[in-house]
Amino acid sequence: MSTGPQPSHPSADHLRFDRNDLHRFMQTAWPERADAYDPDRFSIFEPSACRYHYPVGVDDLRPGETVSGPTLMRLADTVAYALILGHLGDAALAVTTSLSIDFLRRPVGPVIVTDCQMVKLGRSLAVFRVAMVSTADDGEPRLDRPEAVANVTYSLALT
Amino acid sequence: MSTGPQPSHPSADHLRFDRNDLHRFMQTAWPERADAYDPDRFSIFEPSACRYHYPVGVDDLRPGETVSGPTLMRLADTVAYALILGHLGDAALAVTTSLSIDFLRRPVGPVIVTDCQMVKLGRSLAVFRVAMVSTADDGEPRLDRPEAVANVTYSLALT
Amino acid sequence: MSTGPQPSHPSADHLRFDRNDLHRFMQTAWPERADAYDPDRFSIFEPSACRYHYPVGVDDLRPGETVSGPTLMRLADTVAYALILGHLGDAALAVTTSLSIDFLRRPVGPVIVTDCQMVKLGRSLAVFRVAMVSTADDGEPRLDRPEAVANVTYSLALT
Amino acid sequence: MSTGPQPSHPSADHLRFDRNDLHRFMQTAWPERADAYDPDRFSIFEPSACRYHYPVGVDDLRPGETVSGPTLMRLADTVAYALILGHLGDAALAVTTSLSIDFLRRPVGPVIVTDCQMVKLGRSLAVFRVAMVSTADDGEPRLDRPEAVANVTYSLALT
Repeated sequence: MSTGPQPSHPSADHLRFDRNDLHRFMQTAWPERADAYDPDRFSIFEPSACRYHYPVGVDDLRPGETVSGPTLMRLADTVAYALILGHLGDAALAVTTSLSIDFLRRPVGPVIVTDCQMVKLGRSLAVFRVAMVSTADDGEPRLDRPEAVANVTYSLALT
Repeated sequence: MSTGPQPSHPSADHLRFDRNDLHRFMQTAWPERADAYDPDRFSIFEPSACRYHYPVGVDDLRPGETVSGPTLMRLADTVAYALILGHLGDAALAVTTSLSIDFLRRPVGPVIVTDCQMVKLGRSLAVFRVAMVSTADDGEPRLDRPEAVANVTYSLALT
Repeated sequence: MSTGPQPSHPSADHLRFDRNDLHRFMQTAWPERADAYDPDRFSIFEPSACRYHYPVGVDDLRPGETVSGPTLMRLADTVAYALILGHLGDAALAVTTSLSIDFLRRPVGPVIVTDCQMVKLGRSLAVFRVAMVSTADDGEPRLDRPEAVANVTYSLALT
Repeated sequence: MSTGPQPSHPSADHLRFDRNDLHRFMQTAWPERADAYDPDRFSIFEPSACRYHYPVGVDDLRPGETVSGPTLMRLADTVAYALILGHLGDAALAVTTSLSIDFLRRPVGPVIVTDCQMVKLGRSLAVFRVAMVSTADDGEPRLDRPEAVANVTYSLALT
């Protein structure tokens, strides 16, 4: 069987992994965290954008039933990592180099919709914008009123 | 003459200054910088959003005809300040408390379209997201491919 | 019984809680997280500065025995929160408003020394600088070669 | 004449340019900005650290005689760029990829002492911490009470 040439570099317009490939990859590469990449919880997984619906757990709450800051930071990092892996496939390594987050409103859950846009996929860096907002289990997210917004940068080392 | 009650706090849904009020205010408050608030250069100036078309000058360029980083940082701060002043009017004071910016692609001008969204107007802080992209003089901005994105936070002291 | 006047505002030069007060406070206010404020793990707890020695757990590791980014973000937030609580005592409320972190080198543990400096204690905001570096259990931290540095800002609401 | 081998990569422990080399380089590479790299204004210029004494000009002031935010952002970027050029010499290219700054206290000048530490010099990124504080013309800077602190990251492309 003959296949065409592989693209020399990941592209912002093309995914190498879909959400199921991603989940299978994580089950092998990091099984303890694979549940955080549940394919059924991505309502969007396409080139340069994804959206994840995260169910808040009891360990995620601070007193007063507020979702904790570290939960939101981990979620921003996790969902951006899902999208960069989608673009890179398993032929590459991505490492978070910086993350900045603004906490804007009190997050209460029970679901945190996490919306991720890739704003740049460069030769050595990829940059993401992440917005997070609480919804009811079946609600529409009010992404114009996010509870937190984050910028996440990954350094890429192609193998 | 009778006027209705004034709102007790600035609102994300209501401007106290339009782009002409803003310009007049700056001509009095800070005349040396009033040109940076030219009302004709705002293509959008509405509650929670504005867009400014900045003509790159010779002092803004680095070698290689690249728009300098400090020019973009000043522009992000200026346009976010325009929008917070629109919301606050002159009955308040706003001071930048933090700014973070990611430089994504090489900006070349000749115009930098600067798109500003207010993501929060709180009691003591206001947070803005700013995206900047080069266009031709009469071109459509490619805001999905920004050259820089910034988050700007102002501390508010109501008078 | 008569007591003297209370200071009207927390001071950068004075702690209201020492590390034991802090731990007792957390045991009541947020018992699930009180272990993260173990008084014996602070080698420094003084006005404007503290240092915490965090033992890396198995859940903190990524594949390759690297301490995960979310672990470091949570740690930066936790140690800065310890210090602001030390300054505020229980008569106040502090909420993280922003956090930015740069990941510089691969952290491996087994202990992460987390060094926190308060760079500002204002009327409405407090700002911290946090540096994190791996050490052996009894080693000296190489704080000139941090693995991550973070800036953390809290909004203060005095009660 | 025979010279030994050149190091294959810039080192955090070694400068390729001293402050005079830097100034001469800027006079050729970017003459309009060379004055910002006046060798006599660096009180420190050594591996991984430099300190610049910037005289505030009339254009740098906002109403109320406050040094403007954009002046401080440009200064942070300029001084960090001086130090990375010192390490790289002219055999390399450095581009700012991100800058974040916290404004902590009102800067009044007449001199802004700008203290820069390199916290990482990696293969593809260099990260700097910058603190800025006002002094009298001949005063000692109170670097424990900075008016602004910034983190600046450069992307390196070795030529």
